[in-house]
Amino acid sequence: MRESGEPESGEPQSGEPDRWPGAGGPPFDPERFRREGRVVIDWIADYWASLPAHPVLPDVEPGEIAARLPAAAPETPESLAAVLGDLERIIVPGLTHWQHPGFFAYFPANASGPSILGELLSAGLGIQGMLWTTSPAATELEGIVVDWLRQLLGLPDRFGLGGDGGGMIQDSASSGLLCCLVAARERAAASGTGQCVVYASADAHSSVVKGAKIAGFPPAAIRRLDTDSAGRLRPDLLEATMRDDAAAGRVPCFVVATVGTTARGAIDPVAAIGTIARRYGTWLHVDAAWAGTAAICPELRPMIVDGVELADSWGTNPHKSMLVNFDCHCLWIASRHTLARALTTKPDYLRTAVGDTGAVVDYSDWQVPLGRRFRALKLWMVLRMIGGEALRQRVRDQVAWTAEFADFVAADPAFEILSPPSLALVTFALRAGDEATAELLARVNRAGSVFLSHARVGGRYAIRLAVGGTLTSRADVLGAWGVIAAAAGDPVLVSKARGRPAEER
Amino acid sequence: MRESGEPESGEPQSGEPDRWPGAGGPPFDPERFRREGRVVIDWIADYWASLPAHPVLPDVEPGEIAARLPAAAPETPESLAAVLGDLERIIVPGLTHWQHPGFFAYFPANASGPSILGELLSAGLGIQGMLWTTSPAATELEGIVVDWLRQLLGLPDRFGLGGDGGGMIQDSASSGLLCCLVAARERAAASGTGQCVVYASADAHSSVVKGAKIAGFPPAAIRRLDTDSAGRLRPDLLEATMRDDAAAGRVPCFVVATVGTTARGAIDPVAAIGTIARRYGTWLHVDAAWAGTAAICPELRPMIVDGVELADSWGTNPHKSMLVNFDCHCLWIASRHTLARALTTKPDYLRTAVGDTGAVVDYSDWQVPLGRRFRALKLWMVLRMIGGEALRQRVRDQVAWTAEFADFVAADPAFEILSPPSLALVTFALRAGDEATAELLARVNRAGSVFLSHARVGGRYAIRLAVGGTLTSRADVLGAWGVIAAAAGDPVLVSKARGRPAEER
Repeated sequence: MRESGEPESGEPQSGEPDRWPGAGGPPFDPERFRREGRVVIDWIADYWASLPAHPVLPDVEPGEIAARLPAAAPETPESLAAVLGDLERIIVPGLTHWQHPGFFAYFPANASGPSILGELLSAGLGIQGMLWTTSPAATELEGIVVDWLRQLLGLPDRFGLGGDGGGMIQDSASSGLLCCLVAARERAAASGTGQCVVYASADAHSSVVKGAKIAGFPPAAIRRLDTDSAGRLRPDLLEATMRDDAAAGRVPCFVVATVGTTARGAIDPVAAIGTIARRYGTWLHVDAAWAGTAAICPELRPMIVDGVELADSWGTNPHKSMLVNFDCHCLWIASRHTLARALTTKPDYLRTAVGDTGAVVDYSDWQVPLGRRFRALKLWMVLRMIGGEALRQRVRDQVAWTAEFADFVAADPAFEILSPPSLALVTFALRAGDEATAELLARVNRAGSVFLSHARVGGRYAIRLAVGGTLTSRADVLGAWGVIAAAAGDPVLVSKARGRPAEER
Repeated sequence: MRESGEPESGEPQSGEPDRWPGAGGPPFDPERFRREGRVVIDWIADYWASLPAHPVLPDVEPGEIAARLPAAAPETPESLAAVLGDLERIIVPGLTHWQHPGFFAYFPANASGPSILGELLSAGLGIQGMLWTTSPAATELEGIVVDWLRQLLGLPDRFGLGGDGGGMIQDSASSGLLCCLVAARERAAASGTGQCVVYASADAHSSVVKGAKIAGFPPAAIRRLDTDSAGRLRPDLLEATMRDDAAAGRVPCFVVATVGTTARGAIDPVAAIGTIARRYGTWLHVDAAWAGTAAICPELRPMIVDGVELADSWGTNPHKSMLVNFDCHCLWIASRHTLARALTTKPDYLRTAVGDTGAVVDYSDWQVPLGRRFRALKLWMVLRMIGGEALRQRVRDQVAWTAEFADFVAADPAFEILSPPSLALVTFALRAGDEATAELLARVNRAGSVFLSHARVGGRYAIRLAVGGTLTSRADVLGAWGVIAAAAGDPVLVSKARGRPAEER
């Protein structure tokens, strides 16, 4: 990190007014942007280089950061150096460092050079892709790169560009699910008047309930079904519930199959669920937000895309493990017209001759917001500058490291695995019980070099290890075990576990 | 723009493998990021410098860009130079240049050096602000900078940090409105069982109908009320409609007052609407997406914030005219608990000890998506590096230039003003009628130096001039009149209009 005394190339040169773009100054000065841009690029490079030296979690109290910031905006311009100084002194110490190699919490939200530069280009171009006409290349590049990813994942042609389907980028799996749910509700409403019902496993993501609440489903029409012992939606229970609902005059409207639950990475039996959904005319949405991108590896693909041919919609997040910085949710739908019919509200000022012909896609008709950033650039740059091979290798490495980590846990009599590794996620606990496990997790996270989060698995308090950080290496994953074993007070395992990563660092 | 033959500093140096981050290579290499980052920064600076030389609108047919892109992703990495080459050759010619000084269509979506660098920092830090604990500084900086803007706009303290209210950044006015509508629906449902009804003027933004559709309101429960001759919601009609609904057992649930309609910039009488809304216990949402930021000027503030003390929610878009690149919608609510109650769905793995105390805000409980980019950075950087004074001067300049433009239109007997300037928006038409006006607009836009869009104003086909581009100067605004007059074939006015801007260019 830059020391505050060091000279900064983004500072105004002699003779240049210390205001930009001050009243009367240019609102965008290319030469100043070059200088200041380099400073920010260097700052980011320095930040990434310094990441391992930061504690992953900040040590701040509620309100502490806010209290260090001025209560009002300045009237006259301040320099980039002043802003970066405050970023360094006030903001960075209050961040949880999601790009830290020791970040194993939640799911990863990783980034990479190409994706950061793609986001930068998107901001620099500053175009809007709400309609095809508002920047044709933005819509067409998005269609193409999302289709590149579809092919890499081995998703069927019916989601491709040729037929009734299509793919797009949304901000998040939550928003994508909401749009599909609304389309399903409208489709169901067109053929009946009963109360529409939504189905998902109790372990499905919170966005199912959130989306259903937003879409106006009463709590009684949201079925969160018990899972089997491996955390999967039970087709028998789904079918019995749908049958009861249909018999009572309700309309089975929307079922979510989760490929990779948040708690433990469970993969619902999509093919069986899809068969039942077809029987009741129910929309099948596959939420593969986290696990989906692993289907780029042919050997992992079958368990991830099994049953996809029965899905009405299928979504995954390159912004989790595929090196595209948040936000980049890719959503494919089997019938783009059904989606657009549910969401299109085109006033006169947004109608265009070419849009009216149906020859082009106006992506704002597929989502909640009207405006659209040019998000395709960052996915394009990651796919081109990193390439399929390296992306696959990363998945394979992370899966292998997670298995190695799980072997350490399983070998320690104080611990037990609560759910076996699913791709690059494993959950475990102390045999001593929930309280001891929660206390251990708090101790581990306080130490600063790693951050893991928790979940409930089979009613037990579980520690989750989710591997996928950009900088995370095998040494970091095995080192995490060293930290955990040390915090658990098992000196034998500590030295054993620490011995290995040390050699590889 | 860089010529393709020119050497590029982002190219691999000799001895460095031509793959990054190839299998086995570093997934983020700070030194390579420095080099490539500079190339991209320079590319953006060159792009902005070249903007006036581009036609604002591209000349492409549907599918033309897609056909020039490969059908599948590469397996092995390509260089940044290859990507930027394609950006230059294939993508840029297919863009509508929203940052072009001659962009007068829709509403502006402007950007600036500080905001582009803020977006870059956000991508470079790659943190998630979904919960306070997932990066405390992201939540606290957002609270602070949104409050800075609240003060600049003169919005009441009840939207501030001290009491029950609060402010936040969402992606768009559409998403913000949807969240408020859901909160209003839940609040109304708690006190009655009748059908909830939504009210807005017929000229309100399409996001009202879209949000209501998403939230499950049947078409019959969405009232789009006729406006007065100036395009404003009529309080008498609103009251009569609410009274009829209430008498029929329906629940007046949500009313949208628009401050600055899209078609003509009309400002609904918020105070009168709010008084009626209070009478029926109806949620008042003020959609000031475009016009709201002009309230930073004290002399313009009264007409913009009049009645705000009666609003339950109030939103504006710094990403339109306030130099913050899309997306940055600022939303203030009077009761943050009502909003959070409607949207919170917190599974065990997202619960935190500090979150459970209520001492902190978890912003994901206020919006549709779970994940959150660090958008506060770009607003922070714009407010600090540009400052209140210069932002006000920009608004005043744009309002003045629009008035000058309107004077030219009014002085031309072939034209008529359809709606007088509202801030920096004016609409006009040829007296010869809709067909002639539409044909004129097409001719003007084909010429390449300006882009204006259309709307219906009082049933007539209107050309809209919306001023607010980052690079747009007085000369560009008056020059637009020169182009229009020339296309309309009025030689006297052409020379008169062209004479002035030429001197100032």
